[in-house]
Amino acid sequence: MSLPVPEGYQTLDDARLRAWLAGLPHLAAKLGGDSAAWQIEEVGDGNLNLVFLVRGPAGGVCVKQSLPYVRAAGESWPMPLERAFFEHQHYAIAGPHLAGLIPQSWHYDPRLFASVIELLSPHRILRQELVAGHAYPQAALAVAEFVARSAVLTSPLAQPFETVFAHSAVFSRNVALTRVTAELIFADPFEDLVRNRWTTPELDHAAAAIRNHAAVRAAVARLGHAFLTRKEALLHGDLHTGSVMVSADDTRVIDPEFAVYGPVGFDAGLFMANLLMAWFAQPGHATAQDNRQAFADGILQQVRLFWQHFAQRYDALWQAHASGDAWPARLFDSPATAAAFATERAERIRAVFADALGFAGAEIIRRILGFAHNLDFESIADRPTRAAAEAAALQLAEHLLLHSADIADIDTLLAQLRQDTPNHTRLEAVA
Amino acid sequence: MSLPVPEGYQTLDDARLRAWLAGLPHLAAKLGGDSAAWQIEEVGDGNLNLVFLVRGPAGGVCVKQSLPYVRAAGESWPMPLERAFFEHQHYAIAGPHLAGLIPQSWHYDPRLFASVIELLSPHRILRQELVAGHAYPQAALAVAEFVARSAVLTSPLAQPFETVFAHSAVFSRNVALTRVTAELIFADPFEDLVRNRWTTPELDHAAAAIRNHAAVRAAVARLGHAFLTRKEALLHGDLHTGSVMVSADDTRVIDPEFAVYGPVGFDAGLFMANLLMAWFAQPGHATAQDNRQAFADGILQQVRLFWQHFAQRYDALWQAHASGDAWPARLFDSPATAAAFATERAERIRAVFADALGFAGAEIIRRILGFAHNLDFESIADRPTRAAAEAAALQLAEHLLLHSADIADIDTLLAQLRQDTPNHTRLEAVA
Repeated sequence: MSLPVPEGYQTLDDARLRAWLAGLPHLAAKLGGDSAAWQIEEVGDGNLNLVFLVRGPAGGVCVKQSLPYVRAAGESWPMPLERAFFEHQHYAIAGPHLAGLIPQSWHYDPRLFASVIELLSPHRILRQELVAGHAYPQAALAVAEFVARSAVLTSPLAQPFETVFAHSAVFSRNVALTRVTAELIFADPFEDLVRNRWTTPELDHAAAAIRNHAAVRAAVARLGHAFLTRKEALLHGDLHTGSVMVSADDTRVIDPEFAVYGPVGFDAGLFMANLLMAWFAQPGHATAQDNRQAFADGILQQVRLFWQHFAQRYDALWQAHASGDAWPARLFDSPATAAAFATERAERIRAVFADALGFAGAEIIRRILGFAHNLDFESIADRPTRAAAEAAALQLAEHLLLHSADIADIDTLLAQLRQDTPNHTRLEAVA
Repeated sequence: MSLPVPEGYQTLDDARLRAWLAGLPHLAAKLGGDSAAWQIEEVGDGNLNLVFLVRGPAGGVCVKQSLPYVRAAGESWPMPLERAFFEHQHYAIAGPHLAGLIPQSWHYDPRLFASVIELLSPHRILRQELVAGHAYPQAALAVAEFVARSAVLTSPLAQPFETVFAHSAVFSRNVALTRVTAELIFADPFEDLVRNRWTTPELDHAAAAIRNHAAVRAAVARLGHAFLTRKEALLHGDLHTGSVMVSADDTRVIDPEFAVYGPVGFDAGLFMANLLMAWFAQPGHATAQDNRQAFADGILQQVRLFWQHFAQRYDALWQAHASGDAWPARLFDSPATAAAFATERAERIRAVFADALGFAGAEIIRRILGFAHNLDFESIADRPTRAAAEAAALQLAEHLLLHSADIADIDTLLAQLRQDTPNHTRLEAVA
């Protein structure tokens, strides 16, 4: 059953939404005209919320409301409404650092647990576009910029620790969604749970092998401890390709309701993992007209661009905003100490890379063996093809989890991927 | 100037304290008799607070009150009163795990920022006893037990992360004393500040060398980042030998007002650093009757016992209380996964050891070059002897900061110490 809801909460429907927005002058003005004529479309296709697109003659808004249960699972999986509050807090606290990379946030109603944000148009969800074979060469750069700015500017690299501690304390109350992460990524995929599923029977053997791999479990658990204890910066917390909206010339990261302070490599790892899964899935989307080889190569390029831009921007932003309590700038202002500081930054980025690869491995496993799967694989109609793509991704995940600290750089990883999967567009042949 | 104080706050003196305690029946009963006859002694010799010992015919209590400034610096260094609240919170949250290792806590007055705790008698402060040459062979074991229990039982090894996050959020407001740590340990000793001092001119060269050592600064800064971001467990936060009270058969850790979630190695490192400084200081306390060699050897034994007991108890407590969200027990219940879990525990203890050695290095430097010095060195009347002991300790600190990850184990460290300082009791000869 769903949770009891506080007084004043009611699920928005067409009529209620129309009346509510009409009563908020600054939002009604954005829509314009007569509220009765506004076009309202419910588009929530994620796991957790109601999402409405509302359009009037003057413009549009997007309304997102928490439901007291996990939408994808139905009312049998209750979920506190407060996640809308934490999404709003992310916009409030990280938003000033992320202008142009997230939707504008216009209103939050603490009674309805509903927010009103910019309607992104003609944007589409990156994951669907990767399935459809539409390239957005700027997307990875924008997401890298989002991660780098979040990682530096919400952290004690740039902020007094008092500010960081206060912000971290806010998000430490986001326990319902943090529990989802702690369980769905770092524990459940290795257990025998009804809510887990995988491509069966094709993947049964590979699934059992990785689930029972003791060193893989240990590596995932170590990352889970890092996720729960290393409060390095404010994370998006769910940065997969379904949390990115793209147009030809614009990219926005949406849905930060999982926001929590954590290790910087978590966001980077999840995003790279989802690009890599999109790459593994491409043979399943091949047609007679397009074998998807060129598009798949483009996805690997996006992985490379993502990491390179992130690393470069993390370093540059750190240098430009080294006003926090970690590595205090006043200790590194001579030539000798500046050189030591540069070494520290390089080692830190190296450590974030290793973290990110590990988190990527954990994300791949949970998307193939756990509760929440990806459209990239799910939309492959041919089961053997799908299973082959998933099996190849699981192999990579195991490699990342066991050897993340030994992978020299992103080019080494991508070269190895290309080499290990030479017949990438014919993955189905090896199934 | 000191900070403005809230209404109702007044500094306790003999008369006010007597009246206040007389009005608290459960405390008056512990003292017994007529309040006018209670013996009151003000003994605060630390840096921050008023401390009264009150004795009546039935027993005694200890009263500790925050002052709105740093006592050791005078009213020119304001310090919020709230630290008494956080000390009380440490007793409330960690106390249940630490029975027998801390004083009993009997009362807290949020208006006076004063707490009433067990009067420890005939206990003495460990640091003074190490200066005096009095051995307490059980002390290091008890402190190790304190650190191990805190490290496991307040952490996500043993607790649901929701509990850990809530507790961590409480102590994340302990910003005044956390700032003291962030600055006095991780930044100030490397700056040219009026409040720094060292044994000058004898130590000028060694001080300048280590303060300007770029790799040492970088290592200290890296540890400072770890201190501010890695919320592994509830720390005491100031676990030097002045925070330990000893009797022949009892040891208690006091003064947890610096409590904050942080890396487990911090408490362990500070305690080992202070034992090691006591060891370096012994030649300065030698007399014609006692060259202190045997006592010094006993201190190194305490370092060894401390680490060995901590490591053993951390491992045992983790296994016995693996009910938290980090390394979930249900993932490690087969022979193969249990073996992987054992490897994880060993690697984790190895990592805590490296952290602890690094923090020990930072602590030694700040106690010799920073604001807050140690009685161990300060009480050495002969300046060249004192400077030689401090210089040797600084050499160790540099070694610990630059090579903490390469020191195989505690025995290796102690063997090297004995080898590098063969004429330990004649350190003054090398000055």
